[in-house]
Amino acid sequence: MTRETTDLSEDARHALSIPEPEVVEDLEDLALGDDYALKPDYVEMVVDAADRGDTARLSELVGALDPADVADLMGFLSAAYREEVIPVLAPHALGEIISELEDNIREEVLEATPSVTLARALEELDTDDAADVIDDLDDTKRFQVLAAMGETDRAAIETTLSYEDETAGRLMQREFLAAPQFWTVGHTIEHVRQSGDSLPELFFDVYVVDPSYTPVGALPISLLLTSKLETPLAEIMEPVTEITVDMDQEEVAYIFDKYHLISAPVVEAGGRLVGQITVDDIVGVIREEAQEDILALANVSDVGRDASVVEIVRSRLPWLLLNLLTATISVSGIALFQAEISKLVALAVLMPIVSSLGGNAGTQTLAVAVRALSSKELTAANATRIVMRELLVGVMNGLTLAIVMGAAVYVFYDNPKLSLTVALALVVNIFTAAVGGILAPLALEKMGRDPAVSSSIFVTFLTDFAGFFSVLLIAALLFN
Amino acid sequence: MTRETTDLSEDARHALSIPEPEVVEDLEDLALGDDYALKPDYVEMVVDAADRGDTARLSELVGALDPADVADLMGFLSAAYREEVIPVLAPHALGEIISELEDNIREEVLEATPSVTLARALEELDTDDAADVIDDLDDTKRFQVLAAMGETDRAAIETTLSYEDETAGRLMQREFLAAPQFWTVGHTIEHVRQSGDSLPELFFDVYVVDPSYTPVGALPISLLLTSKLETPLAEIMEPVTEITVDMDQEEVAYIFDKYHLISAPVVEAGGRLVGQITVDDIVGVIREEAQEDILALANVSDVGRDASVVEIVRSRLPWLLLNLLTATISVSGIALFQAEISKLVALAVLMPIVSSLGGNAGTQTLAVAVRALSSKELTAANATRIVMRELLVGVMNGLTLAIVMGAAVYVFYDNPKLSLTVALALVVNIFTAAVGGILAPLALEKMGRDPAVSSSIFVTFLTDFAGFFSVLLIAALLFN
Repeated sequence: MTRETTDLSEDARHALSIPEPEVVEDLEDLALGDDYALKPDYVEMVVDAADRGDTARLSELVGALDPADVADLMGFLSAAYREEVIPVLAPHALGEIISELEDNIREEVLEATPSVTLARALEELDTDDAADVIDDLDDTKRFQVLAAMGETDRAAIETTLSYEDETAGRLMQREFLAAPQFWTVGHTIEHVRQSGDSLPELFFDVYVVDPSYTPVGALPISLLLTSKLETPLAEIMEPVTEITVDMDQEEVAYIFDKYHLISAPVVEAGGRLVGQITVDDIVGVIREEAQEDILALANVSDVGRDASVVEIVRSRLPWLLLNLLTATISVSGIALFQAEISKLVALAVLMPIVSSLGGNAGTQTLAVAVRALSSKELTAANATRIVMRELLVGVMNGLTLAIVMGAAVYVFYDNPKLSLTVALALVVNIFTAAVGGILAPLALEKMGRDPAVSSSIFVTFLTDFAGFFSVLLIAALLFN
Repeated sequence: MTRETTDLSEDARHALSIPEPEVVEDLEDLALGDDYALKPDYVEMVVDAADRGDTARLSELVGALDPADVADLMGFLSAAYREEVIPVLAPHALGEIISELEDNIREEVLEATPSVTLARALEELDTDDAADVIDDLDDTKRFQVLAAMGETDRAAIETTLSYEDETAGRLMQREFLAAPQFWTVGHTIEHVRQSGDSLPELFFDVYVVDPSYTPVGALPISLLLTSKLETPLAEIMEPVTEITVDMDQEEVAYIFDKYHLISAPVVEAGGRLVGQITVDDIVGVIREEAQEDILALANVSDVGRDASVVEIVRSRLPWLLLNLLTATISVSGIALFQAEISKLVALAVLMPIVSSLGGNAGTQTLAVAVRALSSKELTAANATRIVMRELLVGVMNGLTLAIVMGAAVYVFYDNPKLSLTVALALVVNIFTAAVGGILAPLALEKMGRDPAVSSSIFVTFLTDFAGFFSVLLIAALLFN
């Protein structure tokens, strides 16, 4: 075969638009960067195939991806393209892809999928993931999908849905491996070999139970593999950390993180083992909870990557209107002192600096407090000490800033009274920021509310108000 | 035995201050609340025992706790009490407790522990945890501790320390379970039983390797237990997601979260398997990275629960001084327009509202952008679309706020020009906030910098400046 011939045959292939043979491995390399994020080029390839109506190519491109990457892909596509992708998805992958999708895209995909296809897809999932999807369906569709499922799966999902949202009951799988204390390692391994289908697809620990089915210990299955076959479980088991079904998911995440758990047994009120939670479900919870704090502190909620402009405006505007109200109240103080301002316009220039510094100092304290509360580094056991420390920090920061800014104002305006006014106001406002920044989240936490939500709008209000008011009041006292 | 006698004997016990016999289980219940957080009462009991110099009781109280809880306890105690607790710690628990401690407390504990004790304690830890501790020691002590360790452990730690901080190389353990493709399930289990000590304490996956020791697949060990003994590994193995030694830990966390991994093989540049990372190390990374974002957005860094007032002031004051500088620049615009203000003091009242709303809108956009960047929902593939959407949101929020505030100003001041000034300024400033809020983090990310750090101080500066300047400039144009 000469070089010429090869080139010609390649041209011929192109002319006939026969795609180059690509193995799945190659497509995967094309799809993902070194950082395992989907490449823009690959998204383009999918869009091209959809535009050309080339279903075979589309199916090949999507089929080469892990469900998590298909879910990612869906997020980058517009709704019209997504609807072209859905039909080419293999039914067995559909369940996993659906459970990876973001809420608003998921909703759309669920609407577009026939109930029977959905039922088959959900049967492939763990109970917790299937229940999550079912929970998102409207009443009619939920009824249809459940009716199309096998009885055991339906019952398991219905039980899971009977627990409250964001609790351990909703996170747990009902499949797990339990063994009585008197069993040996060999007996347990034999039991596993014979159980087959009743076990979850993945399990990491054996829960050792007493006759009332209460967990009394646990052992990692790697220990089953390395221990002598005749050893009784009771001899090698480790203390167990149980989760109760009604525990909040944030608590569950805290416990997994603290004790480095891979899986944990979930018990009912009476102590009876009813399920297990595995760490892969918890990783998502930890990320979500921390990200919720970021957004809550910025007075915004996440409406998803695919939200419309109107949805986004709706999620942000109420907070801005509230801010308009609080800012109006803050500046109303200024209105009382208009006489001072017209006499000394420098006050109008300096006030915003005092309130801006107060706002910044308050936000610092607030962010540290919210983080410490969520990681339980700040609790009733050390609250007094931490509060006292923050107040002292407030005094020290306030004094330092007062010296710097007081000196600058003195140099610039050559007006000792003005310099003193600004310096005193700064001390007052930075201290106020410390008080608000530490006490607001503590008070919210004590009331059982999320310390991140609405603390920042309160602290900003406080420091704006105190900033304006202190400058003007001190000026009124000193200059009259 | 009559009731009377029993009571008397109990009184006698009290008089002699013989403690009630408590089993470890009871102490654990006393120590931890339902939420697995350490109870203030238990901390008090420890403090009491230390005050009385009752070493036996102290040892009993501390011994009943999990290492993670002892680390927690140390955080609630002052330095003087911690020094009383250290000597009662069992040597084998010391390693784990040290690796759970916060940085500044750890430093203190490391100083107080003799090198040989430390060497023994670190030999009990996984390489990654031991290396972390060694890295914190000063040069002299590091030399002493390494010299006191066994040769194998020392070499492993030195290799780990040769990787950069916050990379996969530092997170990985050098112990793992690998098997060639042609091995059967039975052969692999047999190998595990015989390997004993060379395996890590916990392992979750078998990595299947080719003759050049490159991972070609993986299988969870629960699959080893449930598969037929004669099945070759190549037949049941699953695709493997490798991590390279130099990958940033944030990337590693993203991959674990995305693909729900429990463990993953770490490979050198050539593809050779050199270690593994397990999910329990990643849970901590995910929490830390998200919390770093919260603090970075608030322009503050965490100096630990036990930091002194001076340390805290030092971590916050530089940002406040920077804010003083930016705020001064922002208001310098006002100084140019002092004539306008003295003619119309209402401007001084309304300007801060415009800048406050801009700041709030900018922070909202910023927080959403930082969150989306860190979860890779915002990438090069959809950046243009997201930026356009944010700008549209800015226009809509700006128009709405302009109508509300314009109307309020009109009603209150009965001055159409003033009303128009404020409304136009709001549209300008909320749009500016959207531009800054989305472009600042994108630009930082593109430059390879952390998008959370210093974006907020920039956005606040931008909206303050634009807020003051737009109000005054528009007023100057309309009223002259």
